[in-house]
Amino acid sequence: MDIKIGLIGCGVMGADHAAILHAGVAGARLVAVQDADRARAEALAALSGTAVVIGNATDLIAHTDVDAVLIAAPDPTHAPLVLACLAAGKPVLCEKPLADTAQGCRDVVEAEIAGGKRLVQVGFMRRFDPGYRALRQCVATERLGAPLMLHCIHRNKIAPDYITSDQVIANSGVHEMDIARHLLGEDFAAVTVISACPSRLMPNRQPQLLILESASGVVVSVEITPDAQYGYDVQGELVCEGGTISLAPAPPVALRHAGMDGFTVEADWRQRFAEAYRAQMVEWIGSIQTGHPAGASAWDGYMASRTAVSALEAWRTGQRVVISTEVRPDFYAP
Amino acid sequence: MDIKIGLIGCGVMGADHAAILHAGVAGARLVAVQDADRARAEALAALSGTAVVIGNATDLIAHTDVDAVLIAAPDPTHAPLVLACLAAGKPVLCEKPLADTAQGCRDVVEAEIAGGKRLVQVGFMRRFDPGYRALRQCVATERLGAPLMLHCIHRNKIAPDYITSDQVIANSGVHEMDIARHLLGEDFAAVTVISACPSRLMPNRQPQLLILESASGVVVSVEITPDAQYGYDVQGELVCEGGTISLAPAPPVALRHAGMDGFTVEADWRQRFAEAYRAQMVEWIGSIQTGHPAGASAWDGYMASRTAVSALEAWRTGQRVVISTEVRPDFYAP
Amino acid sequence: MDIKIGLIGCGVMGADHAAILHAGVAGARLVAVQDADRARAEALAALSGTAVVIGNATDLIAHTDVDAVLIAAPDPTHAPLVLACLAAGKPVLCEKPLADTAQGCRDVVEAEIAGGKRLVQVGFMRRFDPGYRALRQCVATERLGAPLMLHCIHRNKIAPDYITSDQVIANSGVHEMDIARHLLGEDFAAVTVISACPSRLMPNRQPQLLILESASGVVVSVEITPDAQYGYDVQGELVCEGGTISLAPAPPVALRHAGMDGFTVEADWRQRFAEAYRAQMVEWIGSIQTGHPAGASAWDGYMASRTAVSALEAWRTGQRVVISTEVRPDFYAP
Amino acid sequence: MDIKIGLIGCGVMGADHAAILHAGVAGARLVAVQDADRARAEALAALSGTAVVIGNATDLIAHTDVDAVLIAAPDPTHAPLVLACLAAGKPVLCEKPLADTAQGCRDVVEAEIAGGKRLVQVGFMRRFDPGYRALRQCVATERLGAPLMLHCIHRNKIAPDYITSDQVIANSGVHEMDIARHLLGEDFAAVTVISACPSRLMPNRQPQLLILESASGVVVSVEITPDAQYGYDVQGELVCEGGTISLAPAPPVALRHAGMDGFTVEADWRQRFAEAYRAQMVEWIGSIQTGHPAGASAWDGYMASRTAVSALEAWRTGQRVVISTEVRPDFYAP
Repeated sequence: MDIKIGLIGCGVMGADHAAILHAGVAGARLVAVQDADRARAEALAALSGTAVVIGNATDLIAHTDVDAVLIAAPDPTHAPLVLACLAAGKPVLCEKPLADTAQGCRDVVEAEIAGGKRLVQVGFMRRFDPGYRALRQCVATERLGAPLMLHCIHRNKIAPDYITSDQVIANSGVHEMDIARHLLGEDFAAVTVISACPSRLMPNRQPQLLILESASGVVVSVEITPDAQYGYDVQGELVCEGGTISLAPAPPVALRHAGMDGFTVEADWRQRFAEAYRAQMVEWIGSIQTGHPAGASAWDGYMASRTAVSALEAWRTGQRVVISTEVRPDFYAP
Repeated sequence: MDIKIGLIGCGVMGADHAAILHAGVAGARLVAVQDADRARAEALAALSGTAVVIGNATDLIAHTDVDAVLIAAPDPTHAPLVLACLAAGKPVLCEKPLADTAQGCRDVVEAEIAGGKRLVQVGFMRRFDPGYRALRQCVATERLGAPLMLHCIHRNKIAPDYITSDQVIANSGVHEMDIARHLLGEDFAAVTVISACPSRLMPNRQPQLLILESASGVVVSVEITPDAQYGYDVQGELVCEGGTISLAPAPPVALRHAGMDGFTVEADWRQRFAEAYRAQMVEWIGSIQTGHPAGASAWDGYMASRTAVSALEAWRTGQRVVISTEVRPDFYAP
Repeated sequence: MDIKIGLIGCGVMGADHAAILHAGVAGARLVAVQDADRARAEALAALSGTAVVIGNATDLIAHTDVDAVLIAAPDPTHAPLVLACLAAGKPVLCEKPLADTAQGCRDVVEAEIAGGKRLVQVGFMRRFDPGYRALRQCVATERLGAPLMLHCIHRNKIAPDYITSDQVIANSGVHEMDIARHLLGEDFAAVTVISACPSRLMPNRQPQLLILESASGVVVSVEITPDAQYGYDVQGELVCEGGTISLAPAPPVALRHAGMDGFTVEADWRQRFAEAYRAQMVEWIGSIQTGHPAGASAWDGYMASRTAVSALEAWRTGQRVVISTEVRPDFYAP
Repeated sequence: MDIKIGLIGCGVMGADHAAILHAGVAGARLVAVQDADRARAEALAALSGTAVVIGNATDLIAHTDVDAVLIAAPDPTHAPLVLACLAAGKPVLCEKPLADTAQGCRDVVEAEIAGGKRLVQVGFMRRFDPGYRALRQCVATERLGAPLMLHCIHRNKIAPDYITSDQVIANSGVHEMDIARHLLGEDFAAVTVISACPSRLMPNRQPQLLILESASGVVVSVEITPDAQYGYDVQGELVCEGGTISLAPAPPVALRHAGMDGFTVEADWRQRFAEAYRAQMVEWIGSIQTGHPAGASAWDGYMASRTAVSALEAWRTGQRVVISTEVRPDFYAP
């Protein structure tokens, strides 16, 4: 029997999730959609052919026909909606961030533990990207020995105008914080932030260099450039004792044209991480069927949020900030 | 309502198709499997959890619970099984080749036309590969102008012992003949074959260089090396009036290790064309739902087979062989 | 004591040779220059600071101050000038082709043998390119086993208007014929030529595909595209029993810019083969000092010319042309 | 008339310089060599064929036959020998570092200014590498806009056993400090050092991450890994307002072999920077002929040394260290 999915939020990401459910995933069916902009919800429902429109998110979560919930609504709604899913005992896949404050994440963690059942997955989709998976497997198998450094690059083509330097660190950087922690399999102990001069094209925000230090001493450099102009580009090189392994985010074709030999860089993340989004959905559906959690947990969402808070403090103070240790509850043991 | 699929042939390819149906495709369900080796069918049925084992292929095709048929049985069975599917009025996706002779293909074409309904798709999965799709789109849009040449490389790591030079041309080469015809959007007018000296590691068969000439004068070179040793490798570069576009079959990660900087080459085609196989299945299911054919038709299978026959003649005689024109029936108009 | 060089021909190639002598080569000095256009010779003499202008080529060759001669004058002058150098007993480095007919090359060979001393080097500079050297060493050491196929690509950005299809084969293709013969270490036994449709941008000449077969059965494909538009591009992949080795004509930097990730392709051959031209000069000077010949001999020039003649016949007749064996005189033993 | 060169130090680097003088540079001749190990000097003199052995460095510098001096002796001898050259009024190309302390560099600067003539070039050969030159030109022309960040990677295959973490920073890192300052065209204002855990293969020293901040706010990250195991590897990516430009240290050939597609990484720096060493020599000889200084000046050597001192302080204290401004004397204006 197919799992019946309710989707909250019918913007760009919500529509993407719906399209993935429509074609690329077995065992699930979109049955309900909701959006603050009802017309948008109706358009998506019409497109899907299988979903009804529900007027508000609370009703969607409560609806008897909805087995599991996908949250792609604005960030501030995430924590309350996830808490509502927990109250209803329904599995939920929530776009990152889990909450807009570390305390909000912590509240979700406590509610989930209190409920006694793992129901929350955070949409850190990079964990399902074939490249990052290969990096993680390389760490796990010690194929190249233990990791020593990790270099991450996160470049947006052009960020929206309203994005400020602190959001560059917290909103874009949090993806890197989660995936770096996931790859290394350990928490971070310190963070330093050094800001570059802003581009004259976008003087109100700065490219950032974050340096994270893991508990065991692996050094992670993270460049975040909000306005790289040439395209959306995510890179990663893991330096190990015996060699290095890098993401190779390669497009299907190469071009020789107009004096150049190379390939096209996409403008946004959906194409770059199309396979990751698909695999995330397949494994989320699988985790509901089997009862074995997949992907990033509420605890992972909380830890990413805590790291981002420390990074912001490092940025404001210009100091290296030590991140206090927090012990993972057994509830979240892998 | 899910489309119920019956699978004939539970070997490597059959098992792959079953796995794709299991996880990666919405709107379809494997309900029946059959194999000459019943134990193999039972193992696959157990793995799938949704399929029953049926004793022979004819019964599977006739079974009322089977809406559509997937054929992954040995080559000589293809044509008779496809004809049985046509007789039963059921959509069928048949692994290449459509038949083991051009006449066998022709028989299928005539039976399908007689039935008045497009039901046959041939498993030339490369047509669904993102790289080839980008090449075809480049031709269609004339982004780089009209095509002038196409260079194709097809290398197997090590072919099975029993493969002979004629099979290198016909069985491996037929993939290139189909995809080259598909990319260029026209039939071939001539073929030349020049054989290289055999590798001392495998003296009983020769690497082959095929040169195909399209009706409008595009020249296609095809290297087929059955024993490349280093891995399975498929390449393609389309040379157009204004530049070139190439397949970039890139793995998810790059390595710097042991004095080398590069990436791993896979040993077989399933990983290289994993996305193509998945997309082929998604679109086949979609074509059954919508009634609009997708992928390679019986006619395409017939034309590939005719080209292979001419290539074998060119190889045997050492002469350039002109391929007679055959007009595509309107029934197969795109 | 420096070797005193006289240069005949002060066009693009002559000026390049003078510049190399000026900075990059020890043990030699440009002392005399000549050109049909005296102003051009004077400009180059002024630039070099060490050379006098001489009114005609015969006088330059005869000049007592000239130890060795560099010929970069128009093709039809090559053979007579080389014969004059032989008569004068002076070492000569002559731009390719050695002569504009096979018989002209043969005449030089016979004159050189009659003189009893190896004095002629033909400017097939690719033999000094680090990439081709690595390919040749790979063949020599059998690092990847014996060669089976060689794929060569020769693309000009835009050829001059007056270049015709036969010149595409003979003048551009001859570089490939020489280097392929040099890499494989054996002569060619047959050649086939298949012409592609012309680009609409340049309807008066066709891209060509040559297939050369070596005496031992190695198959060489050669694409020659006179108007590739995107730049000057020379590629080569040698397919051996155990793997392949390819030219990697990589520029010093890569760019990520304007939606592309890649590198610049140069517009002409001087940058691509800058190191080859320099090394050719260094080794030519060294060969004069030591008396041990370097680079391509008159015999090599003759064999390249014979292959080109056969290729033109193959092109005109549309037939595979067998190239008769010619035994290398001991005089030219390596 | 050729410039007559005296070489002090006949080890690996000295022998390399002699070989370059022997073949690849016009207008200069090696006439004298000296080494603490006389046998080594004699071997090199025999090989060169043009040089005499001189018993001590002071005599070589004073020798009337020596026009200019090349210093490739151990680091602690550099400053005294350069001062002796200045006293003798002879041009000198000194391997880096100019002195083993910042004060030693300062002494050379003051002596050179007092002498009133630019005679000293420091062997920061990377400034002559085609890749770095293209990066510098990109900054100069603002082709991609102004620089925002620069990522540098410096990996040795395996450093000698006696190398300690402070030498990793000062001796290897100083190359990056000089080239980064050269590329950006400005001095550094601050430096932070974060050490990674050591490799278990080499527990006595740590890979280092340096973060340099230029006066205008460009952020430079420098990874220095002394024991990368897989080879010698230098990388650099300059992130500008409109795109990025990277070193592409590409070898002449690519390999497909044994399950890998890629290229060989060399074990040491001489091959990687062979062209840079040659060009450095050509331009040094040219600078003597013309009287216009080339390459890194004594001032550049001093500034590199000051940056290294600050980096060591940052490493020892774990603090970001501000580097005080020092105004370049007009004597060293470009």
